[in-house]
Amino acid sequence: MIKAGIVGGTGYTGIELLRLLSQHPQVELAAITSRQEAGKAVSALFPSLRGRVALAFSHPDQAELKKCDVVFFATPNGVAMGEARALIDAGVRIVDISADFRLKDVAEWERWYKLKHAAPELVAQAVYGLCEVNRDRIRGARLVANPGCYPTAIQLGLLPLIEAGAVDLAHLIADAKSGVSGAGRKAELHLLHAEASENFAAYAVGGHRHWPEIRQGLAQAARREVGLVFVPHLTPMIRGIHATLYGRITKEMDFQELYEKRYANEPFVDVMPAGSHPDTRSTRAANLCRIAVHRPPEGGGQAERRDTLVVLSVIDNLVKGASGQAVQNMNLMFGLAETMGLDQVAVVP
Amino acid sequence: MIKAGIVGGTGYTGIELLRLLSQHPQVELAAITSRQEAGKAVSALFPSLRGRVALAFSHPDQAELKKCDVVFFATPNGVAMGEARALIDAGVRIVDISADFRLKDVAEWERWYKLKHAAPELVAQAVYGLCEVNRDRIRGARLVANPGCYPTAIQLGLLPLIEAGAVDLAHLIADAKSGVSGAGRKAELHLLHAEASENFAAYAVGGHRHWPEIRQGLAQAARREVGLVFVPHLTPMIRGIHATLYGRITKEMDFQELYEKRYANEPFVDVMPAGSHPDTRSTRAANLCRIAVHRPPEGGGQAERRDTLVVLSVIDNLVKGASGQAVQNMNLMFGLAETMGLDQVAVVP
Amino acid sequence: MIKAGIVGGTGYTGIELLRLLSQHPQVELAAITSRQEAGKAVSALFPSLRGRVALAFSHPDQAELKKCDVVFFATPNGVAMGEARALIDAGVRIVDISADFRLKDVAEWERWYKLKHAAPELVAQAVYGLCEVNRDRIRGARLVANPGCYPTAIQLGLLPLIEAGAVDLAHLIADAKSGVSGAGRKAELHLLHAEASENFAAYAVGGHRHWPEIRQGLAQAARREVGLVFVPHLTPMIRGIHATLYGRITKEMDFQELYEKRYANEPFVDVMPAGSHPDTRSTRAANLCRIAVHRPPEGGGQAERRDTLVVLSVIDNLVKGASGQAVQNMNLMFGLAETMGLDQVAVVP
Amino acid sequence: MIKAGIVGGTGYTGIELLRLLSQHPQVELAAITSRQEAGKAVSALFPSLRGRVALAFSHPDQAELKKCDVVFFATPNGVAMGEARALIDAGVRIVDISADFRLKDVAEWERWYKLKHAAPELVAQAVYGLCEVNRDRIRGARLVANPGCYPTAIQLGLLPLIEAGAVDLAHLIADAKSGVSGAGRKAELHLLHAEASENFAAYAVGGHRHWPEIRQGLAQAARREVGLVFVPHLTPMIRGIHATLYGRITKEMDFQELYEKRYANEPFVDVMPAGSHPDTRSTRAANLCRIAVHRPPEGGGQAERRDTLVVLSVIDNLVKGASGQAVQNMNLMFGLAETMGLDQVAVVP
Repeated sequence: MIKAGIVGGTGYTGIELLRLLSQHPQVELAAITSRQEAGKAVSALFPSLRGRVALAFSHPDQAELKKCDVVFFATPNGVAMGEARALIDAGVRIVDISADFRLKDVAEWERWYKLKHAAPELVAQAVYGLCEVNRDRIRGARLVANPGCYPTAIQLGLLPLIEAGAVDLAHLIADAKSGVSGAGRKAELHLLHAEASENFAAYAVGGHRHWPEIRQGLAQAARREVGLVFVPHLTPMIRGIHATLYGRITKEMDFQELYEKRYANEPFVDVMPAGSHPDTRSTRAANLCRIAVHRPPEGGGQAERRDTLVVLSVIDNLVKGASGQAVQNMNLMFGLAETMGLDQVAVVP
Repeated sequence: MIKAGIVGGTGYTGIELLRLLSQHPQVELAAITSRQEAGKAVSALFPSLRGRVALAFSHPDQAELKKCDVVFFATPNGVAMGEARALIDAGVRIVDISADFRLKDVAEWERWYKLKHAAPELVAQAVYGLCEVNRDRIRGARLVANPGCYPTAIQLGLLPLIEAGAVDLAHLIADAKSGVSGAGRKAELHLLHAEASENFAAYAVGGHRHWPEIRQGLAQAARREVGLVFVPHLTPMIRGIHATLYGRITKEMDFQELYEKRYANEPFVDVMPAGSHPDTRSTRAANLCRIAVHRPPEGGGQAERRDTLVVLSVIDNLVKGASGQAVQNMNLMFGLAETMGLDQVAVVP
Repeated sequence: MIKAGIVGGTGYTGIELLRLLSQHPQVELAAITSRQEAGKAVSALFPSLRGRVALAFSHPDQAELKKCDVVFFATPNGVAMGEARALIDAGVRIVDISADFRLKDVAEWERWYKLKHAAPELVAQAVYGLCEVNRDRIRGARLVANPGCYPTAIQLGLLPLIEAGAVDLAHLIADAKSGVSGAGRKAELHLLHAEASENFAAYAVGGHRHWPEIRQGLAQAARREVGLVFVPHLTPMIRGIHATLYGRITKEMDFQELYEKRYANEPFVDVMPAGSHPDTRSTRAANLCRIAVHRPPEGGGQAERRDTLVVLSVIDNLVKGASGQAVQNMNLMFGLAETMGLDQVAVVP
Repeated sequence: MIKAGIVGGTGYTGIELLRLLSQHPQVELAAITSRQEAGKAVSALFPSLRGRVALAFSHPDQAELKKCDVVFFATPNGVAMGEARALIDAGVRIVDISADFRLKDVAEWERWYKLKHAAPELVAQAVYGLCEVNRDRIRGARLVANPGCYPTAIQLGLLPLIEAGAVDLAHLIADAKSGVSGAGRKAELHLLHAEASENFAAYAVGGHRHWPEIRQGLAQAARREVGLVFVPHLTPMIRGIHATLYGRITKEMDFQELYEKRYANEPFVDVMPAGSHPDTRSTRAANLCRIAVHRPPEGGGQAERRDTLVVLSVIDNLVKGASGQAVQNMNLMFGLAETMGLDQVAVVP
């Protein structure tokens, strides 16, 4: 049994991690920390876990995290970078669900996150945990930077095109829509039910922290810089990301086949039949990304001109976009079957 | 007082028209027809109108529509084209909220709507009721083709750019999100609450009936063909459309100023301050389009390259996108103040 | 024109009051205060009011509230009681939408609201603003205590029975369901969209502040003490209260007729036909209470025994349950038509 | 492995059963029938099951249901009664999720379901599948009548009181609120998202089919007739039932202890700590009923009089209220661990 610890387990990625790990056949939950809730039973804060998680939150200073085999950081940005070194030195492996180790360019990280990075030397060592790209490196990693939710949906949606050199890399567009749980369990006015339901709006059009992360991943696949307009929107639902991706075609090929081949052996990426419109709910509570590829008419003189590829990519932001992917990374790091503990069927309706 | 009739008043555009007309100071509701509900009090079908609308539905054959000054068609597509001629000949003016007279190219209409057009000779005569474009022609019109919901939000969002020749007209993108009332009051499985809530998906990516309508309007403004990728999505809310519009800049100018000037005298178009993210709810139940203009960074070598304009355009699909715009057209046709009966403040929260 | 001031206009009752007053033909909005937002345009905080409310928030100390004809308190509990005296002395009339003056028993008020009352001498003078009960006294009032949302729906639902002495007064039950806007515009975790949507739960079963207010009103109508079990629930919607009321019948009569007669002349209470199930949405954004009366079978030996009356009472908690009722009170206080500025038709769908 | 068949698998209980059975370690899905979808892959209708359910729907006449060990009826009422006999004669065991065999009084069944019962002789043989009451009899049953959703939540909530003779059995009240999936996957106007969201209403106050079922179960526990007012409401969410139950206390005891003891060994009933307010979401997608017991003040002379017990009982209507309970019954019938395949943790948020 793998002894697992969770730092900062009171947010949505924390409770989702608890849901998944408490059902994982090879994991023993050893500790979960929360400065604010120390001493309180986890199931008192999250009654959905009554009878399933017997732990109480422990104070970060007192948790015996160094005795764990793996520690997950489900913390706000800026915490993991301060604590990772000591744990790694103690032989603990780390999956950081926050953003501390995602950007390789420390200066850019500091610009976007408005913090001084506390462990730049670990940044190079960290492996970006998008399993469909870095599977082999993750296996040996001591520190995995778990991807953000938008970056997961968008990279999985665009990677086949980029790897194939099939679209104009200077002018990609990602129009993404997220359920409100993506904003975290934070008491902020704009996230209230009375504000966020029955409403739809874009946000952070001028610049979102996931933009450099996405561009970094795409650039690595392209082996050159990539231009991307990224417009995130808040959608009146709890879970789910729908990324609608636009790329100008530069090389003809069978795009449906391209995607099917790229993901043929991926257990958690489902390329749907041509013409499909994936529902976000078809991934609800499941560790899955579903993708469909379209090539609509544009008109502009010739009604049937079709210059633009439209890719639809959906995930559950808390599972494949966060905690499920974290467990997938853990499975790889410990030599378990990649799908272990991640076989939940999506909950519909 | 203007005597108004409504044909087919049992759908969402019908009940919204009733809400607006019953509060209009210069309108007398004279008749409302429904084959299925004939004889039933309107307020028995729609209890929200109890005490406000005293009419009963009458059978289409028996309604004295020819005695009306204006008749609104809130019918499924294909009805108005069969009944308009007789009413026009009787001196009645018509606002058709359905799609029968929107496309000038009858062959294209027949291709998209899969019907033989019953009154092609009226198509030429019909005026497209986007007041912000055709105000003068609407004043004298006998037959107004009220625009679709997506076409309203998208055209108002793109017109200033197109009129100014500022973007690449061959490759516009409209990524649009609509609340479910846009699909109408139809008993279809995919519109059930248990199907459509907590879910987000694109639909009709391969071709939507509003696509030729939008392209027609844009082409008229551009005086040439326009290429457009149009991707509609269903959003888990009742009312509201959010169009996110992308255009590659071809001519530099102050885009914020461009929009402010274009709509300076428009009572129902609100250009928001630079950097705004309009909420759909800020137009809920009100006859308004709110627009914001952004120019985000793209990266791709130079982090600050900003080649693409992003316009956010929101409406309430049932008001500015349907029945409110119909009343606006009626006001113009009868020489009333354009804003009469349309001064409702948006309902928030 | 009546010069109106609003103290504390940043919550949901505040924005709703702004929506209504900005459309009221006899009201001039003179001042709105907010300690936190002082100096900011109202329409910057609430974009739905762009073009409709030109005021900026002013600091409470600097607002010239004493020059107003009427001041509305849309504040948290405990504010109005400290400021009312000075305004009344200056000749200003007050409608307090908070709870400061609702309970006649000051000791009980202090027990429930956990504050020392700052103006007990004004409590006796305050008139409880349930127009359907206290219309005449409201006309002459200088200080109106606007009823709470639950108390409005529940009292209007039960009053006919109690006035008629038709049910067992010792054992009434009010099972009430409220949309989340009833909890106010407060950044609290349990009100987040991700917490409150797709969920239903009771709260405060052990004791809710509206309980003594309801019992006070019912006892006044009954001229004796009344026993009431009150169970409020949070419902995943923005607006609306549905009260399901249970009373054991002690005197036979035609209950439908009882209700119809009691409310025959009330412009804002709609007794629906026997057998109806009022939708909360049929009052959305409108100053209305809709009521239906049922007498279901109970079984228990005789299948058709029908000992219990079930009354369904619905309102929009922000309109008839708060700001609309406040305007109704103002209309009465200033000798205007009671319905002035309150003729909005409910927004459906 | 148990070979399982499903008749009528296109509704919400069908897809939920597929979700559960496809993850059950001892079940092999052998056949699923649908007259309308015959020949279509299950995963084409329900993309959430892509990769998890390989079956196609088969025509009812051609499915080899008789080779199954167990057949679940997830059909509209009136189907199972016609097909059960032949299957039972072939040695197949049946769990009927519809209502055909729930009422022991055939005449009463025919009155409520407005059908002639096709197999009255099987009614006596059928075991009512509320495991917490009939566990032993279910083990040996050939035909289990799976309880309705409201009856499950309400009976589990009231049974301890009734078995203890602690409340007035002539005047129980069940005020129940259900998510819209309880109404089934039916294309009906009132279930549309645009109708059912942002709305709350009671329905069928005059008489609901679950009323006789609940009274039958309560009467059996009481060994006498029971009087019950049952008021169901439609709540704007997909899953979940919240029953708020009221009983007048006739015998004093420690009610919290009563409930804890009654359900001490029940794997799927969770008695929460005194004073709790269970969320429906804390059971989402899980086979659980959570219960809390309250005794609020009533006033009526003595402020602290507390004559009425209030029990809050929540379930996921599709799991413990339907398909999860059906699997629980199957486990009992086949001698498996009762919890096998039913250990999903509730999905929150």
